[in-house]
Amino acid sequence: MYRVSVIGASSFAGGELIRLLLNHGGVTITHLTAHTSAGEKIQSVFPYLYGFMDQTIEELDLSKIKADSDLVFIILPHGKCVPVAAELAAAGIKVIDIGADFRFRDGAVFEAWYHVGHENHPLTKAAVYGLPELYREQIKEAQIVGNPGCYTTASILAMYPLVKEGVIDPATIIIDAKSGVSGAGKTPSPTNLYGEANESVKAYNVGKHRHTPEIEQALTEAAGRPVTINFTPHLIPMTRGILATCYGSGVGVQFGKDLQAIYEKYYGSEPFIRIQEPDVYPQTKWTVGSNLCHIGYHYDERTNRIIVTSAIDNLGKGAAGQAVQNMNLLLGFPETTGLMAIPQCP
Amino acid sequence: MYRVSVIGASSFAGGELIRLLLNHGGVTITHLTAHTSAGEKIQSVFPYLYGFMDQTIEELDLSKIKADSDLVFIILPHGKCVPVAAELAAAGIKVIDIGADFRFRDGAVFEAWYHVGHENHPLTKAAVYGLPELYREQIKEAQIVGNPGCYTTASILAMYPLVKEGVIDPATIIIDAKSGVSGAGKTPSPTNLYGEANESVKAYNVGKHRHTPEIEQALTEAAGRPVTINFTPHLIPMTRGILATCYGSGVGVQFGKDLQAIYEKYYGSEPFIRIQEPDVYPQTKWTVGSNLCHIGYHYDERTNRIIVTSAIDNLGKGAAGQAVQNMNLLLGFPETTGLMAIPQCP
Amino acid sequence: MYRVSVIGASSFAGGELIRLLLNHGGVTITHLTAHTSAGEKIQSVFPYLYGFMDQTIEELDLSKIKADSDLVFIILPHGKCVPVAAELAAAGIKVIDIGADFRFRDGAVFEAWYHVGHENHPLTKAAVYGLPELYREQIKEAQIVGNPGCYTTASILAMYPLVKEGVIDPATIIIDAKSGVSGAGKTPSPTNLYGEANESVKAYNVGKHRHTPEIEQALTEAAGRPVTINFTPHLIPMTRGILATCYGSGVGVQFGKDLQAIYEKYYGSEPFIRIQEPDVYPQTKWTVGSNLCHIGYHYDERTNRIIVTSAIDNLGKGAAGQAVQNMNLLLGFPETTGLMAIPQCP
Amino acid sequence: MYRVSVIGASSFAGGELIRLLLNHGGVTITHLTAHTSAGEKIQSVFPYLYGFMDQTIEELDLSKIKADSDLVFIILPHGKCVPVAAELAAAGIKVIDIGADFRFRDGAVFEAWYHVGHENHPLTKAAVYGLPELYREQIKEAQIVGNPGCYTTASILAMYPLVKEGVIDPATIIIDAKSGVSGAGKTPSPTNLYGEANESVKAYNVGKHRHTPEIEQALTEAAGRPVTINFTPHLIPMTRGILATCYGSGVGVQFGKDLQAIYEKYYGSEPFIRIQEPDVYPQTKWTVGSNLCHIGYHYDERTNRIIVTSAIDNLGKGAAGQAVQNMNLLLGFPETTGLMAIPQCP
Repeated sequence: MYRVSVIGASSFAGGELIRLLLNHGGVTITHLTAHTSAGEKIQSVFPYLYGFMDQTIEELDLSKIKADSDLVFIILPHGKCVPVAAELAAAGIKVIDIGADFRFRDGAVFEAWYHVGHENHPLTKAAVYGLPELYREQIKEAQIVGNPGCYTTASILAMYPLVKEGVIDPATIIIDAKSGVSGAGKTPSPTNLYGEANESVKAYNVGKHRHTPEIEQALTEAAGRPVTINFTPHLIPMTRGILATCYGSGVGVQFGKDLQAIYEKYYGSEPFIRIQEPDVYPQTKWTVGSNLCHIGYHYDERTNRIIVTSAIDNLGKGAAGQAVQNMNLLLGFPETTGLMAIPQCP
Repeated sequence: MYRVSVIGASSFAGGELIRLLLNHGGVTITHLTAHTSAGEKIQSVFPYLYGFMDQTIEELDLSKIKADSDLVFIILPHGKCVPVAAELAAAGIKVIDIGADFRFRDGAVFEAWYHVGHENHPLTKAAVYGLPELYREQIKEAQIVGNPGCYTTASILAMYPLVKEGVIDPATIIIDAKSGVSGAGKTPSPTNLYGEANESVKAYNVGKHRHTPEIEQALTEAAGRPVTINFTPHLIPMTRGILATCYGSGVGVQFGKDLQAIYEKYYGSEPFIRIQEPDVYPQTKWTVGSNLCHIGYHYDERTNRIIVTSAIDNLGKGAAGQAVQNMNLLLGFPETTGLMAIPQCP
Repeated sequence: MYRVSVIGASSFAGGELIRLLLNHGGVTITHLTAHTSAGEKIQSVFPYLYGFMDQTIEELDLSKIKADSDLVFIILPHGKCVPVAAELAAAGIKVIDIGADFRFRDGAVFEAWYHVGHENHPLTKAAVYGLPELYREQIKEAQIVGNPGCYTTASILAMYPLVKEGVIDPATIIIDAKSGVSGAGKTPSPTNLYGEANESVKAYNVGKHRHTPEIEQALTEAAGRPVTINFTPHLIPMTRGILATCYGSGVGVQFGKDLQAIYEKYYGSEPFIRIQEPDVYPQTKWTVGSNLCHIGYHYDERTNRIIVTSAIDNLGKGAAGQAVQNMNLLLGFPETTGLMAIPQCP
Repeated sequence: MYRVSVIGASSFAGGELIRLLLNHGGVTITHLTAHTSAGEKIQSVFPYLYGFMDQTIEELDLSKIKADSDLVFIILPHGKCVPVAAELAAAGIKVIDIGADFRFRDGAVFEAWYHVGHENHPLTKAAVYGLPELYREQIKEAQIVGNPGCYTTASILAMYPLVKEGVIDPATIIIDAKSGVSGAGKTPSPTNLYGEANESVKAYNVGKHRHTPEIEQALTEAAGRPVTINFTPHLIPMTRGILATCYGSGVGVQFGKDLQAIYEKYYGSEPFIRIQEPDVYPQTKWTVGSNLCHIGYHYDERTNRIIVTSAIDNLGKGAAGQAVQNMNLLLGFPETTGLMAIPQCP
């Protein structure tokens, strides 16, 4: 049994992570920390965990965590994670950062979009971007993993193979994404107030959302040249789920069969990716509670555009599920351990 | 008092139309027809109308309707409206068709997308497309008005001014639209089943949705040359509302101020269109129950793309509200009569 | 045109009140005050009002309000309203308090349930309980009206006639009520957080909810002896609406016809109450956006219990709608002025 | 590995059952039958199962099912199950009927409430009522198990201990229950139409719901004398979950501590029942996807009434979860096998 701890455990992503870790079978949770709820029993923060574990939320104390953790998950506001991760890594402890601090290879990009002075710690460059479908082997050897954003995961998984194979013009990529309200976090605010979010849809942070450069980083790597995209997030009235609808112009191939072949090539043996039959479009509901990503695609001959929709659970493959997938890679478990629960539907 | 009748009154759009007509003040409802609920009291079909009117749904009998109607609204399956409208028009009665039969100037386009043999009645060409913000004067003189589709209204209102002014490249237009479930109609089906639609989002009819050629017809007219677009509808878990997120590449102008000036030029004196301040993005909730269309816009310098979001109530400006607006034009009422109710929020 | 002001205008009830007042036709709004949003344009607080009014939220300044208001609505935390209302009343201005301060004839009851030292101002006794269906004539002559609570309105309207007529045993009354989340207010908190409230139902404040003594006060008056009830509120995942399901044992009458006759006797000419046919049970949806109260009833022979369900919009008849109804009585407008909008459904 | 089949697999309960059986580890699914979807792949009926199993829905053929099933789950309309179960039982196959046919010891009660001529097969009396917390030992020996209704499970678990211990007056019991819309089934109808069910709450089948005699049967047994109750179901806008709010007058005991002691006595070692601390009231959300039942209680001194709320997932402990719990008892698995998944929240 490996020992794991969660720093910043009281968030929605933290709750989902605890749920998955309790179901995992190969790890025990040694510490759960959270500033605002330190001292409270777990069931006062997550009442649905009553009877499943009996632990008290602690104030963050790195010396304690270092003493009895093999791996630590960090869920802290951006800009706060680097010193914590540095200390843990120096002690030989594996780190998975569910925040944004370790997602960018170029610290300047992080600073430009997050407006946080990023102490450009050498660790930043050492960290591996935790999208196993693309970077599985590097993750296995990493000390620190930067767990991808939720919108990013859905977007990159949909577009990476097409860009890499050159069948889509990367200069034409537009991603229109729809997220459930749990993506707006657990801290009460007008954005995640029931009366505001219910029965409504809106775009937000148009042209400015911080997942944009994260998507661009991966697609730039796929294209072998700088890729700039449009990414427009929307908030829709449901608790969990992200659907990314991705558009781009086709580049000189026979479509239909081609697209299927490409997705099969990249994801045919991936345990968490489900490629749909042509013209079947996934619902986010098919992924809720799971680590799955469903992908559906269409080639529109009238406009020579490819349209791909990809669906994930923002708290699953978009956060805690992917973090456990990364943990499995870091600790040597089979990659699907604890992650094969079937989505709960309806 | 003018006398109006509604053919196909038992749908969601029919119910909303009755609500608006009862609030109007200048018309009385003489006949409400619906095949499946003929003989029932209005309150057994629309219980919330109990106490507001005391009428019985009738079987369709055109001779009765002709005898005491000045204007007739038709809500019938596509392909069924032409003979009914022809008979009414021949009797000198004004017709507003809330279905698709009279929306296309070119009958072949209708046939290609609707797969219904369209008897290419001369009336089709005589009908006027009922989007008052674009065709106000023609509507006033029309015998038959083809009331626009819901997605179409939101999309055209957002894009028409930019295409007409030449600041957007019409070949690059992509419209990603999100609709509440009332858009899927009142006939129970897996699509509008609560357990299927709740807590989920999906794209549907990708590349095939019938509102596509309707949008293209208006933008083609604006551009003065054929325009082909991508239109992707999505179903989201709320009852009312449509948000259209529209993308296109900018054409050589100073943006920001330019966009505002263009929208002011086209809509500055329109009573139902609300242009937002830059970087304010409308929520569908701000339009629910009203005939409003809120428009927000952004120019993304990184990609030279314009992003416009427009929000309407699919049953309001997207159906019944717009039909009443057209009725006001046809019968000579002030255009806002019965339509200035403030949206109900939250 | 009478001049009215709203103190505490930024709440959900405040927004609904503004909507109704703008639609009213007989009043103009002179001041809107709110501490946290003082200085903001109305549309930054209620974006759906953009284009319908152009007013700025002000800091509370009673001297200004006294100078140009004929009637003032107050929406302040309980315990804060008495001095404000006293000053306004002393200046001859009519006051409608949408909070709880003026709902109780016995100040000790208020103190016991609200845990607020109630300065037992003589005005408290002078105030009239603003349920027009029961106290219409007194309201017309009042200086200060205590607008009833939302749960209370639904509960009293359902039970008062049965208690008054002696066909129900008041010692057996149990009221199980279900409220939409807007009832939990607009200040973000865990209770009204989307992720907490969505897809869930719970009871809360069991045996302790402050609307209990308000219901008991009215039923005590109806019975002519002290009535103690059980009242259990529940939060359910919808924005607006309250359904009160009320139970009590029958007292020696022929039911069915009797119940209908009683409700007809009390409410047959009430403009806002809709008595359903036997065994038709109202949905809250039939009242949304309106000042209606729908009542359905059943007599269960197996248990000799009467079951009554009553549905209102908690922001309509449960708050702002009723406040406008009271305003109409106080200012001499026909009682239904501005309140006959048909519910918006679906 | 035991072999199990599901007759009537295309319902919501069927889908949840398949999900649980796939997660179970000790059984394989040999046949899934459903009339309307016979011949379809499982993923066309339940798209979220795509990749988890590869089976085709079959037309019902009992000879095939008898050939290779050790246990059969039946989900058929009431009145249809008896002959099917009889044939299976005669072949020595264990049967769990998720419908109502085997829930009543007295066939006349079934006929009176279900209006179906019940061929009063000897098997009816032989069947065991499948509520393991009350009838665990009998279930282990049963040939046929009548799986309880959803409302019934929540209601009986809440009230049985109090009636049995004599601390509540059974003549005063009122149960006011709230169900998510998946309880209305998967066949599209006005009741489970999104536009009807969303943003609304209503009571239905008041005094007539068929779960009433099922609750009475258990409480009659607990009381040792006939118990008649009021049961009022409500439909609320969420997909899964039932909350039963139960009322009854206390009988001469020291409450608070007494209630806790009683629930501890009955359920202290039950793996699926969670007794809350006093004055903590469960949310249905805490049970979603699980086989849990959360119970909270209050004693109201003012009225001498006990109020108990119990929360379950209607598709979990209210249907498929409980069926798997019964399967575990019938086949000799540890009772919690496959059922310890933590609820998914939010």
